[in-house]
Amino acid sequence: MIGENIIACNYRKASGGRFKATDPSKGIELDGEFEVANEVLVDSALEAAKNAFVQLKNTSGKKKAVFLRAIAAEIIALGSTLVDRAVLESGLPAARLLGEMGRTTGQLRMFADLLEEGAWVNAVIDTAQPERTPLPKPDIRKMMVPLGPVVVFGASNFPLAFSVAGGDTASAFAAGCPVIVKVHPAHPGTSALVGEAISRAAQATEMPEGVFSMLYDTGYAVAAQLVKHPETKAVAFTGSFKGGMALIELARQREDLIPVFTEMGSINPVLFLPEALKNKSDELAAKYAASITLGAGQFCTNPGLMLAIQSADLDQFVTKLSVAIEDTPSATMLTNGIWENYQKLSSAMMAQAGVTLLAKSTAVNSDCTNQSSAAVLKVKAADFLANPKLQEEVFGPLSLLVIADDQAQLEQVVAVLPGQLTVTVLAEKSELPAYRHLLDNLSTITGRLILNSVPTGVEVCAAMQHGGPFPASSDSRFTSVGTAAIYRFVRPLAWQDWEDSLLPEELQNANPLNIWRMVNNRWTKE
Amino acid sequence: MIGENIIACNYRKASGGRFKATDPSKGIELDGEFEVANEVLVDSALEAAKNAFVQLKNTSGKKKAVFLRAIAAEIIALGSTLVDRAVLESGLPAARLLGEMGRTTGQLRMFADLLEEGAWVNAVIDTAQPERTPLPKPDIRKMMVPLGPVVVFGASNFPLAFSVAGGDTASAFAAGCPVIVKVHPAHPGTSALVGEAISRAAQATEMPEGVFSMLYDTGYAVAAQLVKHPETKAVAFTGSFKGGMALIELARQREDLIPVFTEMGSINPVLFLPEALKNKSDELAAKYAASITLGAGQFCTNPGLMLAIQSADLDQFVTKLSVAIEDTPSATMLTNGIWENYQKLSSAMMAQAGVTLLAKSTAVNSDCTNQSSAAVLKVKAADFLANPKLQEEVFGPLSLLVIADDQAQLEQVVAVLPGQLTVTVLAEKSELPAYRHLLDNLSTITGRLILNSVPTGVEVCAAMQHGGPFPASSDSRFTSVGTAAIYRFVRPLAWQDWEDSLLPEELQNANPLNIWRMVNNRWTKE
Repeated sequence: MIGENIIACNYRKASGGRFKATDPSKGIELDGEFEVANEVLVDSALEAAKNAFVQLKNTSGKKKAVFLRAIAAEIIALGSTLVDRAVLESGLPAARLLGEMGRTTGQLRMFADLLEEGAWVNAVIDTAQPERTPLPKPDIRKMMVPLGPVVVFGASNFPLAFSVAGGDTASAFAAGCPVIVKVHPAHPGTSALVGEAISRAAQATEMPEGVFSMLYDTGYAVAAQLVKHPETKAVAFTGSFKGGMALIELARQREDLIPVFTEMGSINPVLFLPEALKNKSDELAAKYAASITLGAGQFCTNPGLMLAIQSADLDQFVTKLSVAIEDTPSATMLTNGIWENYQKLSSAMMAQAGVTLLAKSTAVNSDCTNQSSAAVLKVKAADFLANPKLQEEVFGPLSLLVIADDQAQLEQVVAVLPGQLTVTVLAEKSELPAYRHLLDNLSTITGRLILNSVPTGVEVCAAMQHGGPFPASSDSRFTSVGTAAIYRFVRPLAWQDWEDSLLPEELQNANPLNIWRMVNNRWTKE
Repeated sequence: MIGENIIACNYRKASGGRFKATDPSKGIELDGEFEVANEVLVDSALEAAKNAFVQLKNTSGKKKAVFLRAIAAEIIALGSTLVDRAVLESGLPAARLLGEMGRTTGQLRMFADLLEEGAWVNAVIDTAQPERTPLPKPDIRKMMVPLGPVVVFGASNFPLAFSVAGGDTASAFAAGCPVIVKVHPAHPGTSALVGEAISRAAQATEMPEGVFSMLYDTGYAVAAQLVKHPETKAVAFTGSFKGGMALIELARQREDLIPVFTEMGSINPVLFLPEALKNKSDELAAKYAASITLGAGQFCTNPGLMLAIQSADLDQFVTKLSVAIEDTPSATMLTNGIWENYQKLSSAMMAQAGVTLLAKSTAVNSDCTNQSSAAVLKVKAADFLANPKLQEEVFGPLSLLVIADDQAQLEQVVAVLPGQLTVTVLAEKSELPAYRHLLDNLSTITGRLILNSVPTGVEVCAAMQHGGPFPASSDSRFTSVGTAAIYRFVRPLAWQDWEDSLLPEELQNANPLNIWRMVNNRWTKE
C-alpha cells in the first residue's frame, strides 16, 4: 500500500506531514503512512483535470463504459485485501463491506450500462421550418454535456460505496468529468487501494491521466483549496450538516457560482398508524430495532424519529421494541470522533425536558473501543413541538418516539419537520385514506416516501431519489444515488443550424447510436 | 387601470408611497399611480401562496393547462390596450410588442400543451423483485413535483414575454407553483393590465387565489423581503449581472438554500471565419448591423463581441458594416437609467487603450429623448487580451470587433472569454473542420452554438437552451426559455412500495394518462 497522493493517475511525493489510520475497534494505529497533500499538488491535480477534460468531454459513452467496467474489475481483483483493510479502518463487519463492495462495483456497471444504452443525454431535436411565417424556424438540437472537473469528498460511513470509487465518482466519470477525490482520513488505506485501482483502470483503457487524482489531508486546507479552485466546476459531498454547510460557505468565496451538491442526512421520520400497531406490533418492533441499529445507526437514512398517536397498542409496540433494543449487541462506531459525538448528542437529548429513556442496549462488548449503545427515547408531542433541539440529527443508533394525543396533534408535529431524505409510513392499507392530508403534508418535506418498510436500504436504480428538501440536501432537484445522479454534473448545450457531421453522434440526423430522442416533441428512435 | 398591489388575485390598498410610469421617448410621466408594497403585503402574498400550494400541487396537468390557456385568452382580449400602454412605457415599437404578445401567449399555450401531453413529469418506475437475493427489490416510482412558491422578477427588456405573465411565470405555474411577481418599475401599467388578466383567469378556472400575487416597488426593499422570505422556495430573474448577483447575495442571508435562477446576459461572441468573409460580406454586414441594433441592442443575446482574423476581406466587411451602422436610425431605449448607462459604458469602452471607433449611427431623432446611437468599435487581439474591461457587457447597440493576427491568437482570445448565453460562428461549411479545436473550446463556454445566423431571436421550443456557464447564468444546468424551463421549479419525489390508488395518476400501474414512462429502464406507454 502506497501512501502517496495520486496526481493524474500517478503517485507524487509530498514533503509535509504524514498520518496513520486508526482501528476504531481497538484504538490503535494501523500499518501504512499517508502523506498530507499541499497547495502545489492541488494545483497540479486541477491543471491535469482541466487538460484531461478537453479529451474526456468528447469521449464516447462506449469508451467511458469500458473505463467504468475496468474500475469495477480492478476493485473485484483486490478482493479480501480491500475488505480486510476496510474492516480494520471502519470497524464495520466484513459481510457488510463485502456487500458494499458489490454495491460499489454494481454502481460502476450500472453507469456503464447507462452510457452504452446512450439515451441518458436527453437528446432533443426541433427541426427547421424554413417556410414558417413571420420568421423561419431554425433547426435546434440539444443534449447534455459534462461540466468539467468535479471534486468528490469521501464519506466515512460508506468507505467503498460513497468514497473514492463510490456513487459520486462513478456518476461524474460517466458524465465525462475528471474527478479529484479528497480522501476521508478515517479510511486512507482503503482509499489508497481503490485509488490505485482507478488509476490502473484509467491507464489500461487509455483515458487521459488527468481524469483522476486523489489527495490526503487530516485537516481542512486541502478541502478549502479544492472547493475554491477556479478550475473546479462542481462538488459532491455526503456527510454531516455542519460539513456540508462548510463546503457551501467555501464555495461562496469563489468569484463564480458552481453547483455544490451536499447530502447532509436527516432524521427520517417514521409514522406508525394505529391499525398497523394493533395488528403487526411484533413484526414492526423487530423490523425497527434492526433498522435503528443497522451499521450502528450510521446511515443518512437511519430512522431517528418515530411518530405515533397514543394508544394501548402503541404501549405494546414500545415494550416489544424496548426488549429488542436492549438485546442489541454493541457495535464499533466508525471513528472515535463519531463515537464521542454520539455520546454527547444522545446524552444531551436525554436531558431535554420531557424526554424519557425507553430502552438502552446494555450488551456492550468491553473488549473493543468506540462501542455504540443503541437507545430509544420518548417524548410527548407537546414537548417536541416546544423544543427545536429535538429535531436535530443524532448520528448513531438512537431513535426518538414522539407521542401525539390525537391526529390533529400529529399534523402539528409534521408541520414543523424540516426537509428529509425519507419519510416512512407503517399502516394497514385500509387506514391510509383517513390520513390523506397528513400523507400529503409528509410528501412536501421528503425526497422519498416509503410504505411498510424501513428507510435504511437505498436501492440503486433509475427511480431512486436520494436527496430531499433542505436541510437533507443542498438542492432537492438532484439525487446522489441511482442513474439520475449523473445529472448533477452535466448541462444542456444547444446547437442551432449546425453542420450534421460536426454534431455529436447523439444529435446527428441518422441517429447512428440508435438512441431514444425527442424529435419535434415526440419520443422516437427515428 | 388600477395601481394597487394584487394579493392572492385581489387588489389590496397600501398606504405608503406611490409612483408613476415614465414615457422614455418623451421623458414625461404617464397616467396612473402605483402603490409601493410593504412588509405586510409581502407576508400576505407568501402566506396565501403557501396555502394555495397545498391545493395547487395536487392539481392535474389538464386543469393547470386550462388556467394557462385562460391567461393567454385574457391577454389577447386586452389587445391594443395592452400594446399601446407597453409602447408608452417601454419606447419599443408597436410591431415588436405585438410580436412579444404573440410570444407571451404562445409560451403559455406551449406549457399548456406540455401539461396536457403529460410526460414532462419524467415518470420512472422500477418494479419490485420480491424473489431477488440477497435482498428483495422494492417497487420504486419517481416523478417531478413542484417546489412551492416562486418569486419572479419582471425584466425591463421584455415587458410582456419576460415579465408578469412571461416565461418564468408560465413555467412556474405549469410546474404547479404559486407565483409572486415583483413588477419591474419601468412598466407598471403594462404589469397592472397583465396582473389583472392573470387574476381573472385564476378566478375563472377555479385556481386557489393564492396562486398569484403581484407587488410594486421602486426600490429594493420588497425584492429583499421576497428573496429572504422563508416561504419562498425558488427565485427567477432575467437582467443585469449586478442585479442577478444582488439576488444571489440576498438568498445567502436565508437560513436554508433555495434555487435562485438568474439569467444575467452576456456579450455573445460572433466568430467570422475567412471564407465566409470573402464570399458573403454583403449579407453578413446587413445581417449583423440589424442584429446589433435590433431593439436598440437591448437583448441578452445581443452580439456585443465580434472575432475575426485580419484580412483584406475583413476590411471589406468592416466597411460595409460601418455604412449600415451609420445609417441605422436611433431608437428609444427602455429607460433613462439604461440610456445613461449605455452612454457611460460605451464612452468608457471607447476610451480603453487600442480601441477605435469604426462607425456610429448619426441619424438621431431629436424629437425624442433617450435615443440610442449604435456603434461598432475595433481593437487588436493583443489589446483585448491585456484588458479584462473589454469583456464586460455594454447593454445597448454596441459591438466590439476583436482582430487577431492569426488563428493561434484567435484561440487565445477564446480561451479568456467567460461563460456566454450564445456563441455564433459564421463560416463556409468547407472551412469548419480546420477550426475544430477552436469550435470545441467555444462549446465549453456557451449554452447555445449557432451557425450562420444571429444570436438575437430565441426560439421558444423543447430544444432551446437559454442559460450558459457563469456569468451568463447562475446555473448552467437550467434554461429560462423553452419547455425545459419548467425543471427549475420541480424536484423528483420517489414512492417506495406505495399503494397504487394513492399514487399520482402518472405513476399508477394502469397508466391512466397514457404517458411515456421509463419502466424498468425501458421507455414505454405500457
